[in-house]
Amino acid sequence: MTTPTAHIASIGTALPGDPVDNAALAKVLGVNEEWIEVFIGTKTRHFARDLGTGTVRWSLADLCAQAAQKALAAPAVDPAAIEFIVLGTATPDTLMPATVNQVADQLGLDQVPTFQLQSGCAGAIQALSVGQTMIASGQYRTGLVIGGDVCSKHLDVQRDLSDAAPSDLVNFVLFGDGAGAAVLTAEPAGERVALRHVLNRFTGLGSKPGQVIEWFGLADRYDDRQALTEDYKAIEERVPVMAVEILWELLGELDWEADELDYLLPPQLSGRMTRRITEELGVPTAEEISCVADTGNNGNALPFLQIEKLLGRMGDGHKALAVAVESSKWIKAGFALEKI
Amino acid sequence: MTTPTAHIASIGTALPGDPVDNAALAKVLGVNEEWIEVFIGTKTRHFARDLGTGTVRWSLADLCAQAAQKALAAPAVDPAAIEFIVLGTATPDTLMPATVNQVADQLGLDQVPTFQLQSGCAGAIQALSVGQTMIASGQYRTGLVIGGDVCSKHLDVQRDLSDAAPSDLVNFVLFGDGAGAAVLTAEPAGERVALRHVLNRFTGLGSKPGQVIEWFGLADRYDDRQALTEDYKAIEERVPVMAVEILWELLGELDWEADELDYLLPPQLSGRMTRRITEELGVPTAEEISCVADTGNNGNALPFLQIEKLLGRMGDGHKALAVAVESSKWIKAGFALEKI
Repeated sequence: MTTPTAHIASIGTALPGDPVDNAALAKVLGVNEEWIEVFIGTKTRHFARDLGTGTVRWSLADLCAQAAQKALAAPAVDPAAIEFIVLGTATPDTLMPATVNQVADQLGLDQVPTFQLQSGCAGAIQALSVGQTMIASGQYRTGLVIGGDVCSKHLDVQRDLSDAAPSDLVNFVLFGDGAGAAVLTAEPAGERVALRHVLNRFTGLGSKPGQVIEWFGLADRYDDRQALTEDYKAIEERVPVMAVEILWELLGELDWEADELDYLLPPQLSGRMTRRITEELGVPTAEEISCVADTGNNGNALPFLQIEKLLGRMGDGHKALAVAVESSKWIKAGFALEKI
Repeated sequence: MTTPTAHIASIGTALPGDPVDNAALAKVLGVNEEWIEVFIGTKTRHFARDLGTGTVRWSLADLCAQAAQKALAAPAVDPAAIEFIVLGTATPDTLMPATVNQVADQLGLDQVPTFQLQSGCAGAIQALSVGQTMIASGQYRTGLVIGGDVCSKHLDVQRDLSDAAPSDLVNFVLFGDGAGAAVLTAEPAGERVALRHVLNRFTGLGSKPGQVIEWFGLADRYDDRQALTEDYKAIEERVPVMAVEILWELLGELDWEADELDYLLPPQLSGRMTRRITEELGVPTAEEISCVADTGNNGNALPFLQIEKLLGRMGDGHKALAVAVESSKWIKAGFALEKI
């Protein structure tokens, strides 16, 4: 059974500043450029903080508002028609106010329901899911769905990294910052891309988290403990398997055959992992739509960056399927798009 | 127009440890007990951390799971029927995994969609709204909605508070920790309380935040800056006015008269503010249902604590209206309940 559809009318994305390449990053971190190439396979990323001084140049709200402004500027979209805003992020600017309200403020939107979903790689898809459900409920017709992350709030560039463990350094080379936004509508408009199905399911019962991001309160003894930790062994083992399961489950739900897929949007962990997962997904007839090698893993921005790239290619009747895995507590996520 | 209803079938709440009274708190903080009585008007609160040592005794996930277990233990509820979980909180245990997934793990729930909403006083109501919308969409029939906060992550009891400013000290006496949960169903079951309407609306365009909660990343220079700040003047001025507006807007939406209300659940800022707001709401025929003077302001737990108290009193056909204001970025929130 496919759930009732909402439609993507327009999209916008925002990446902070110039891309930072591996040579520049290697110099700041005091690591080997080749190590980044081989271990991560990501070529560039964007940071909202200045890499030299650590100064904040853009907040998450700034990036989300920039992306949303682009989506709202599409000819088919009337900003006055926006009836709700949903933001997915793992890294809000503050715990209160929720960043979605600062975004609303920057956009000049008022008197609308706002929601902010706390999630990692699945957050953008959860935001699409809540948006789709709101439209399916018949209570709303047009809404703004946003995803973004500013991972660099945990990247302390003023710290001496010369004795940092690889498991700590990897966070500096894996992540990036960015945001994306889409206008969802009940009826086809603008880009006329139907959201045929959204999958979002917790599957982590009894499993240790594969990824943890801490936040520090004043009552936490500040001890320089690592804020971002990954269980890479678990991620390397489980994510490709889960990705294949998601692909086949989505195809089953949609009653689509794999060879009907025109485009495949695989999980965007890193350049290297995404290449490996795409091979294991084994849909050679579908064109791969990836961005992580150029943008870094900027979390909840990724699905929007992929959709933006996809929309430029999609023709009438084209089908696309996106697969995402949140390794934090093993969430299966994905969605299906069709240009109509 | 009232939105389609979902129903509250059961409820559960959890408060950590013994209540901490003003005498005990005044001793720890080195402040006058009477100052707490007069300025805040809250008699007791509960903390998830040990007030002497700062040791974490319960996580937010622990409290939410305890509350949810009570809601799921109701005779009318089948835990296997739970199709989704929505948690509202301002103070997640970690940024990733989202706490809702740790709660699912503790409850033994798997293979369900999970959502975690980042919000202050409006978060529990946003969670009710998302749950109601999911049921209204026809895609789900039964779900678990949770709200909770562990504010004490920012209360550093090992700090010397002798020179702390009143604006800093107030956070130690205003807040508390706790959680609550409700099982939502499409059809009436158990408590048979219809959720007639949910209001959740950003109204803060152009307004400075009335309340801010920071989180600290490793890239933030750790400078002992205040993590919780309130603009009390703005809160004292605006919240009562907004509460009255919400009351009349909800009555209008529902086509209810004020004197039809059997119960009124006013905003729960503090014992003193709640008394003042209740007077200004001016519905003397409705019985006030408040808890903050006993529980402290434990954020997203409050509406569930109020609903639990309400359910023990509600008879067939009784109507109740809840009003909440999130002063962080001025969100109007509320909901209407009717026992059927």
